[in-house]
Amino acid sequence: MTRFIEVRTSRRSQLLDITVEVQRALSASGLEEGAALIYVPHTTAGVTINENADPSVAEDILSHLEKMVPRSGSFRHREGNADAHIKATLVGFSQLVPVRGGRLELGTWQGVFLCEFDGPRSRRVLLSFLRSAP
Amino acid sequence: MTRFIEVRTSRRSQLLDITVEVQRALSASGLEEGAALIYVPHTTAGVTINENADPSVAEDILSHLEKMVPRSGSFRHREGNADAHIKATLVGFSQLVPVRGGRLELGTWQGVFLCEFDGPRSRRVLLSFLRSAP
Amino acid sequence: MTRFIEVRTSRRSQLLDITVEVQRALSASGLEEGAALIYVPHTTAGVTINENADPSVAEDILSHLEKMVPRSGSFRHREGNADAHIKATLVGFSQLVPVRGGRLELGTWQGVFLCEFDGPRSRRVLLSFLRSAP
Repeated sequence: MTRFIEVRTSRRSQLLDITVEVQRALSASGLEEGAALIYVPHTTAGVTINENADPSVAEDILSHLEKMVPRSGSFRHREGNADAHIKATLVGFSQLVPVRGGRLELGTWQGVFLCEFDGPRSRRVLLSFLRSAP
Repeated sequence: MTRFIEVRTSRRSQLLDITVEVQRALSASGLEEGAALIYVPHTTAGVTINENADPSVAEDILSHLEKMVPRSGSFRHREGNADAHIKATLVGFSQLVPVRGGRLELGTWQGVFLCEFDGPRSRRVLLSFLRSAP
Repeated sequence: MTRFIEVRTSRRSQLLDITVEVQRALSASGLEEGAALIYVPHTTAGVTINENADPSVAEDILSHLEKMVPRSGSFRHREGNADAHIKATLVGFSQLVPVRGGRLELGTWQGVFLCEFDGPRSRRVLLSFLRSAP
């Protein structure tokens, strides 16, 4: 029942709207009531929810994360991507969205975004559809 | 099985304790073992868990988030609330709390808080009660 | 079906790899398909996922969180651990990992870490194993 989405990012830092792909997999799963888990099995990428109407919101999120965790900071990890690991922990590796009547119960302005912090790369997003009571 | 809570916030930034309302909806759901999803379908509000004994903890969280993401920062999003979008992504849009014997398995000092970052507004909190194995 | 892990931390700030313990409890639960909730019932500790191959990643996360939320900041909460409450809200109190074939579907480099921000202490980690559809 766990499905996945493959995406290709094109920049080092990027928010990619995957809402349509998640809804498509949910519909295929047959789940009517419960929740959809959207999970990133990486350590330098995350997943968040936010506004997908005005693209400047995603840009503000990325540029402010860069201010809070500059790539040029002094870190022990020697691969040059310690900032990406930290940003991923701040944003989180999963989102869980309620499902009703087979639809993601997102708010009017909400979209689901893969957060790339060390691209460009191929990334995988795992999905699991959980049942509610009773 | 997804229920919701409606709240009215009274300040721009505010932590609102909704623990009692979540437990009440959980009891009505009949779920005995599993987890309660508390989900905010907004893009400038979030949900967190923290201490609800000393109210200064909630104030410290809000004032420190304001230091980390000042409203007066330079952002592209033109609605004057880019900081609220970023704070919501940092705090997160949901919490998932284990349920045992029909009760939220919160720690002694834990409460569930709606996090308002662009109020005052009416906000909705969605709830979904998920079943555990077997 | 909710189980727990007890750990003893040895420093004020510490990331403790609990991946093996979580997998062991998952195996005991018998869940084949769904998700594992890893939940910390504390207000000055959290749980995250990140790289567990190079220990410098965990050190970078902790030292950067200390820069973002210094213990010596001016806070209202009088117990000297307001920073720990804020760090816990940033990192989060739970992680939810997909389960397939009875195994945590973690990425190659991912481990699950208890995040201690006000130790040394005894900490409890609650686990709940959720069923997927159908």
